[in-house]
Amino acid sequence: MTTREEITEQIVTARLAKGLTWQQLADAIGRPVVWTTSALLGQHPIPAESARTLVDMLGLDESVVPALAAVPMRGGLPTAVPTDPTIYRFYEALQVYGGAIKELIHEEFGDGIMSAINFSVNVEKKPHSSGDRVVVTFDGKFLPYDWTAAD
Amino acid sequence: MTTREEITEQIVTARLAKGLTWQQLADAIGRPVVWTTSALLGQHPIPAESARTLVDMLGLDESVVPALAAVPMRGGLPTAVPTDPTIYRFYEALQVYGGAIKELIHEEFGDGIMSAINFSVNVEKKPHSSGDRVVVTFDGKFLPYDWTAAD
Amino acid sequence: MTTREEITEQIVTARLAKGLTWQQLADAIGRPVVWTTSALLGQHPIPAESARTLVDMLGLDESVVPALAAVPMRGGLPTAVPTDPTIYRFYEALQVYGGAIKELIHEEFGDGIMSAINFSVNVEKKPHSSGDRVVVTFDGKFLPYDWTAAD
Amino acid sequence: MTTREEITEQIVTARLAKGLTWQQLADAIGRPVVWTTSALLGQHPIPAESARTLVDMLGLDESVVPALAAVPMRGGLPTAVPTDPTIYRFYEALQVYGGAIKELIHEEFGDGIMSAINFSVNVEKKPHSSGDRVVVTFDGKFLPYDWTAAD
Amino acid sequence: MTTREEITEQIVTARLAKGLTWQQLADAIGRPVVWTTSALLGQHPIPAESARTLVDMLGLDESVVPALAAVPMRGGLPTAVPTDPTIYRFYEALQVYGGAIKELIHEEFGDGIMSAINFSVNVEKKPHSSGDRVVVTFDGKFLPYDWTAAD
Amino acid sequence: MTTREEITEQIVTARLAKGLTWQQLADAIGRPVVWTTSALLGQHPIPAESARTLVDMLGLDESVVPALAAVPMRGGLPTAVPTDPTIYRFYEALQVYGGAIKELIHEEFGDGIMSAINFSVNVEKKPHSSGDRVVVTFDGKFLPYDWTAAD
Amino acid sequence: MTTREEITEQIVTARLAKGLTWQQLADAIGRPVVWTTSALLGQHPIPAESARTLVDMLGLDESVVPALAAVPMRGGLPTAVPTDPTIYRFYEALQVYGGAIKELIHEEFGDGIMSAINFSVNVEKKPHSSGDRVVVTFDGKFLPYDWTAAD
Amino acid sequence: MTTREEITEQIVTARLAKGLTWQQLADAIGRPVVWTTSALLGQHPIPAESARTLVDMLGLDESVVPALAAVPMRGGLPTAVPTDPTIYRFYEALQVYGGAIKELIHEEFGDGIMSAINFSVNVEKKPHSSGDRVVVTFDGKFLPYDWTAAD
Amino acid sequence: MTTREEITEQIVTARLAKGLTWQQLADAIGRPVVWTTSALLGQHPIPAESARTLVDMLGLDESVVPALAAVPMRGGLPTAVPTDPTIYRFYEALQVYGGAIKELIHEEFGDGIMSAINFSVNVEKKPHSSGDRVVVTFDGKFLPYDWTAAD
Amino acid sequence: MTTREEITEQIVTARLAKGLTWQQLADAIGRPVVWTTSALLGQHPIPAESARTLVDMLGLDESVVPALAAVPMRGGLPTAVPTDPTIYRFYEALQVYGGAIKELIHEEFGDGIMSAINFSVNVEKKPHSSGDRVVVTFDGKFLPYDWTAAD
Repeated sequence: MTTREEITEQIVTARLAKGLTWQQLADAIGRPVVWTTSALLGQHPIPAESARTLVDMLGLDESVVPALAAVPMRGGLPTAVPTDPTIYRFYEALQVYGGAIKELIHEEFGDGIMSAINFSVNVEKKPHSSGDRVVVTFDGKFLPYDWTAAD
Repeated sequence: MTTREEITEQIVTARLAKGLTWQQLADAIGRPVVWTTSALLGQHPIPAESARTLVDMLGLDESVVPALAAVPMRGGLPTAVPTDPTIYRFYEALQVYGGAIKELIHEEFGDGIMSAINFSVNVEKKPHSSGDRVVVTFDGKFLPYDWTAAD
Repeated sequence: MTTREEITEQIVTARLAKGLTWQQLADAIGRPVVWTTSALLGQHPIPAESARTLVDMLGLDESVVPALAAVPMRGGLPTAVPTDPTIYRFYEALQVYGGAIKELIHEEFGDGIMSAINFSVNVEKKPHSSGDRVVVTFDGKFLPYDWTAAD
Repeated sequence: MTTREEITEQIVTARLAKGLTWQQLADAIGRPVVWTTSALLGQHPIPAESARTLVDMLGLDESVVPALAAVPMRGGLPTAVPTDPTIYRFYEALQVYGGAIKELIHEEFGDGIMSAINFSVNVEKKPHSSGDRVVVTFDGKFLPYDWTAAD
Repeated sequence: MTTREEITEQIVTARLAKGLTWQQLADAIGRPVVWTTSALLGQHPIPAESARTLVDMLGLDESVVPALAAVPMRGGLPTAVPTDPTIYRFYEALQVYGGAIKELIHEEFGDGIMSAINFSVNVEKKPHSSGDRVVVTFDGKFLPYDWTAAD
Repeated sequence: MTTREEITEQIVTARLAKGLTWQQLADAIGRPVVWTTSALLGQHPIPAESARTLVDMLGLDESVVPALAAVPMRGGLPTAVPTDPTIYRFYEALQVYGGAIKELIHEEFGDGIMSAINFSVNVEKKPHSSGDRVVVTFDGKFLPYDWTAAD
Repeated sequence: MTTREEITEQIVTARLAKGLTWQQLADAIGRPVVWTTSALLGQHPIPAESARTLVDMLGLDESVVPALAAVPMRGGLPTAVPTDPTIYRFYEALQVYGGAIKELIHEEFGDGIMSAINFSVNVEKKPHSSGDRVVVTFDGKFLPYDWTAAD
Repeated sequence: MTTREEITEQIVTARLAKGLTWQQLADAIGRPVVWTTSALLGQHPIPAESARTLVDMLGLDESVVPALAAVPMRGGLPTAVPTDPTIYRFYEALQVYGGAIKELIHEEFGDGIMSAINFSVNVEKKPHSSGDRVVVTFDGKFLPYDWTAAD
Repeated sequence: MTTREEITEQIVTARLAKGLTWQQLADAIGRPVVWTTSALLGQHPIPAESARTLVDMLGLDESVVPALAAVPMRGGLPTAVPTDPTIYRFYEALQVYGGAIKELIHEEFGDGIMSAINFSVNVEKKPHSSGDRVVVTFDGKFLPYDWTAAD
Repeated sequence: MTTREEITEQIVTARLAKGLTWQQLADAIGRPVVWTTSALLGQHPIPAESARTLVDMLGLDESVVPALAAVPMRGGLPTAVPTDPTIYRFYEALQVYGGAIKELIHEEFGDGIMSAINFSVNVEKKPHSSGDRVVVTFDGKFLPYDWTAAD
């Protein structure tokens, strides 16, 4: 029996060995590429049928499908503060602009948050005269603080 | 003499006392609102002339202008992992989607990062049938790993 | 000018000096007592009118009202792991039952979370033959993971 | 010989492979489902007879029964601050409402704590016009601070 | 208005200036000396009458009585791992014997804990041929794990 | 070749499989039960002869005797702050009473510490009208601060 | 299938077993020696052809080439603060001179940073009358803070 | 009496108020600019005569000279991992290239370190066709591991 | 009333202002210089008479004598891992040689420790052909692990 | 292929199995015993010839010699603050006397450090009327802060 963490490791190395892109894997199951990549990295459950397709493409054992279909223990960064430079830049932006983003969400929407659950992320390549730009959009439903009880 | 941290505290309380919005402060100096808010929260130097305008609006002492115009020691979160829910959601998105974002930047652009220096952030309110959405765009120049030396 | 942290300290000591209960303060503004206590401890904005009432009762300076009415930087525990025994027991329950709660939310609702924003807390005293019980109810809207974008 | 941690991993993957719900496992031994799930995740000893029933259902080796029946080293979160979003919301609620809960336990009961030992947790799904709610009840005996000695 | 932390600092320096022993302070209010010392160091509420007696002896301002009588935010060590050698030895004993103490509580009592609430501590000086001994007794009610709910 | 950590794991699971109590193991070598348990959990060297007796009872390989007889790297808690509730209560008592214990050791003995080396621990079950009590005695030689040099 | 971390371990031990210098490995692929060493230690992707050359020299299995050619999760220090003395000295220099370097970058270039992406490092041995010197040059493109957006 | 930390704060704000560059301050005392800046930021003692010159230029009180002339408690970063982007890039370079630098120091010099005491730092602006470069040179004497004793 | 921490700060700045050496202060009270320095830095109680002498020399207020004469809360490093280079070298030596020192204490003395209480430290300057040496001697009584109880 | 960490584990257990003392191992290669122990615990490279001798005595595989002869990644303590009591006492001495040692190095030598590279440690057993003493000497070359550059 294999844990979800071990399956994630297998996926990472199998994808490289097979020379598959994340986009190809996403296309095979008809799901957005950020979602698919995140799910294959162990952050989302993958419906059994899609999981079977991906497992086939990657040449993994079919027995891992139930684990892929289960809700995982999320949280994919190995350290509280990321050390990989590509990921760190987002953390740095949060250090520099997080306070401002908070203030402006409150100014524009009132007291509440951007949901990270009713949420999507998009990574885009946009041309620009001074060099291509990475444009990452965090798009979440506004959730106002709302003191509601069941009864 | 007042440190930058003390000036930031004064700005925060003065803005509330005066009933000014961040947008009004940004408009007064003709700069984007995320940039202005971040700068007033101690994350960017503010050119002396703009600083003077803001200091007047907020009713602060003119002597703080040189400190506002100096490059600050950046890093605005009080703890390594943010505890404020509005800011935490962005950290959580990084925990869940950070690995995927990294993979896709590499798949689409090659090896490198999104700059957090040649960079802008935008906070938008977008209507949606199931509720308004907070759309935060991180937009940075792609910087390819490039082994270059001065000579 | 006084920061929100300093106002919270003033509230804590003024309440004791005046001999007021949290319930009395909550009743004076017609709001639930957990919400009111949390707000007075610096975790929620308090509408200006209610803030004025509370400030009067506590004998604080009226100038603190705008700061009380602003959305605060939340996160009220002085350390990442609480050391106060009364608060620690909830952290301990999370250590022992957190994994189970997660599994059962997923089993009963599917993939998603209990919102901590569309949310209320209740503290009740319930008699029991072997001694009174503290019953604390965390009541939040279920938010299913939902990959939605603004457009 | 297998450690309790390894047995927990086996349980987690075996349950998924067998397609069993936590409720089915709890029903098989006639115990509450939160308790059963928590115990199977390594947080409570499981009486030998019940352990044998569960081990059979999950297809594990009978030799793990004594380890399941022993009091475990408790503490089930992999990090001091949880990163999984479903679990984090409870930690966040503690950050925002923990101080208020403490104050109100003291106001209603006097000095003391909610026991996390003479204690039960309940997870319920309650319908609500604006969406189903997750209602988690922490229910512990009040323990007043009591300076008692053996003799 | 003075916070409980500031009052604790005042007590510590006033006691030294007045040349009072902890025992004298405990005797004055007729309470055990460990309890009294701990309370004066900010870890327990002190009933108003006793607080008044102590405040008089120490020459502090009477206005601090309500703060002394309130339940404090407990947790008296400045760092998670104590650095003071006298306190550290107890932490070290926990590192070396904590696992054994746990096993033997379970072997002798079953699954449960020693309460730290229904609890007393005693510090004694016992003569011994090879040198006086510090004997510190932790004495708490055994609390068995007991899955009980209010209804 | 097996490390001490691996031997400890083997002891823990073998004891459960064999159904032996810590008291039985201690009796077999004629040593106090807290000491024996602590030693078997990897915190003390066990003289070769006693080690051989214990290894036989537990059905382990005789080759582990030299490792058991060597002074181990001590420090048995997996995290700086313990998460297991039974062990945590001792840490909590240190948070609440550690400062007082320090003050009273100094008041009764002068400047110095309770040794954790010339030291014993006792765990006792004492009956009490309101429920059995866990009485844990930390008993160490008083060591006065003493500025001595070899020559 | 082997993870990048396991391949790095294999490289480290194979290089020693084969008695190869980092310089020889760098020469074999015609790349700077700091870059090559860093890449072989798991910090940079190595183009497939070069990877094949290195894998041959080191006697590793050819199947590791795709993993070597992929962008790795960077961040090579095992702890946040390095403990190895050779590496620590650079961290110490940052503690002592980091603030000054920041001030002077701002004084000479304006607000911005030294890129660590458009960047090279050089390690040189320079003779000096009082002993050879290690001269390490960090050479990165200046990136001015520049608030640019894609559109 | 003023502590060194308070003097550093005074220097930082006085320099901005007076509009002095670090270079001007360094020139006034005829010392390298990195050294001077670092010393004024509290990382080096400043000989009394130079200190007097600097104190005059900055308009501080002459009484701070002895504190400036004393060896300070060094370590200028407010957090173990720097959060300011300009300083962080050096930490990042250490994460990515630290292991390689260590290997190459050993390959070129043998076992030992680059001294951070017999040491200098240089910050230079070098033009380059694709943009100016920040070139920071860490230059320290090689210290071979050398097992020497006083007698 | 002044806390011990504030008194330590006053001592540090007063000594510099008065131009006194630690040796002069130690000579004035006839105590070893390491002990005296450590005590003045807040790590040891100073007998009242000696405290009075030192307070006079330093020009402090006589009212601080009782606080100086009380046993302090020890632990003088501002961070768990020291950042000051002079102090860090001792921590580094512990990282590199700590394991060996432990093994050799056990090999030469048996199971036990070097006391840090019955203990002295000496700092000496010893000439050497290749440069003066700092020789720091830690000299503590050997304490064998000894399971002794009061009765 | 075996990593240095695995070789260290093998050495530790093989030494115990063979019943060899560290002194015997040191004598066999004619090196000081602290150095030899430290090197065998993975903190120093061991010249190939000596390594071969030690590997033979310990009965390890000859193939580990190149790894033993390579400069290791140093830093031998498993946690930033040591938990083993024998090692902890040195850390505690640093907490209590570190500040004083720093002050006296500066008073006797000027600004600089004790080298931990041009350095030796000695562990001695010295008899004393009140019990044997552990005398550990840290002996390092004084390195004055010296701003030198290569050219």
